[in-house]
Amino acid sequence: MKSHTVYLTFDLPARMAFENITPQVEKIVRESGVAEGLVLCNAMHITASVFINDDEPGLHEDYKKWLEELAPFDASAARYRHNRTGEDNADAHMKRQVMGREVVVAITKGKLDFGPWEQIFYGEFDGRRDKRVLIKILGD
Amino acid sequence: MKSHTVYLTFDLPARMAFENITPQVEKIVRESGVAEGLVLCNAMHITASVFINDDEPGLHEDYKKWLEELAPFDASAARYRHNRTGEDNADAHMKRQVMGREVVVAITKGKLDFGPWEQIFYGEFDGRRDKRVLIKILGD
Amino acid sequence: MKSHTVYLTFDLPARMAFENITPQVEKIVRESGVAEGLVLCNAMHITASVFINDDEPGLHEDYKKWLEELAPFDASAARYRHNRTGEDNADAHMKRQVMGREVVVAITKGKLDFGPWEQIFYGEFDGRRDKRVLIKILGD
Repeated sequence: MKSHTVYLTFDLPARMAFENITPQVEKIVRESGVAEGLVLCNAMHITASVFINDDEPGLHEDYKKWLEELAPFDASAARYRHNRTGEDNADAHMKRQVMGREVVVAITKGKLDFGPWEQIFYGEFDGRRDKRVLIKILGD
Repeated sequence: MKSHTVYLTFDLPARMAFENITPQVEKIVRESGVAEGLVLCNAMHITASVFINDDEPGLHEDYKKWLEELAPFDASAARYRHNRTGEDNADAHMKRQVMGREVVVAITKGKLDFGPWEQIFYGEFDGRRDKRVLIKILGD
Repeated sequence: MKSHTVYLTFDLPARMAFENITPQVEKIVRESGVAEGLVLCNAMHITASVFINDDEPGLHEDYKKWLEELAPFDASAARYRHNRTGEDNADAHMKRQVMGREVVVAITKGKLDFGPWEQIFYGEFDGRRDKRVLIKILGD
């Protein structure tokens, strides 16, 4: 069994933003030499996500608006007790739960085994600083 | 290490619907010959889910109503920018994020290692056409 | 390839509660002898979650309030059809979907490969009774 571990770092220039990381993951899968296996891609931070969906800018705007409705940004401690700690990012901890921490993707014949529109995104909900994503590959 | 890959196709006759795919996954696990391992089940489309919950029709009606409240269907581009592309399914991309893309299930002694009520569902949010689910098994 | 399977049991003394299970998972990873691999941690019940986030009591209060807004507890069958079955926990089936069933975590050099704040929680949404969590490790 082979394993391969890579850490990617992102510093997105907005509070909330999505970046397509499929090309980086594809490259790491090729480098691993794994033909049949699984790849885990997860945010290593708790106010960020890795998720799979469509690379369509209008949809990303819809996601931002929708997540803001479900868990509005509010730096005060009136709405969110977490912000009593001096943080202002309680909303980001909620947005991340909706979008998820991780994806697990099949590797078949050396490639990400994807449907026609699947793309992997890093989702940032408390940005403007370095955060890491873990790529872990297991297989043969 | 063994691996086994199967693609299932579903064409559900409604916009939103849930189908219990546990029997198919159990059969694929048996065919794989894997005694100890993991099985990944994921939607290959970005307006569909694979999730684990209860096979109770009332609950499924509750899920539909609840998801419709969280992300209402609206074919217009007034609510959802994604629908400016000519699509009418922006809501389905949101419903899918709530219910999730995938599940990873343990295989122990050759069987899905499940609690008493766990069942695997394909969740459709933009149906009436063929969509695929990937089953990928890794183990010994 | 090694595999290792452990079942943990929890009986949390409230309807909704979160318990940090990271120390138990770390111990199981050490016992497995796996240096490079994946660990799946999943709730075996459909009104409970395993998720990764921050061990901060204020945030946990925020999660409870937020989940209660997204899917309010209501024992009657007026809001939730599932409760016509004699259950009172339809809300718990929804809260669990928001927080997720499972996490998959990388094992690197014999340890959980975590970012600085990642902690694993058992999330209970219909408590005061025994429920199980499955820990399944695969690797070398």
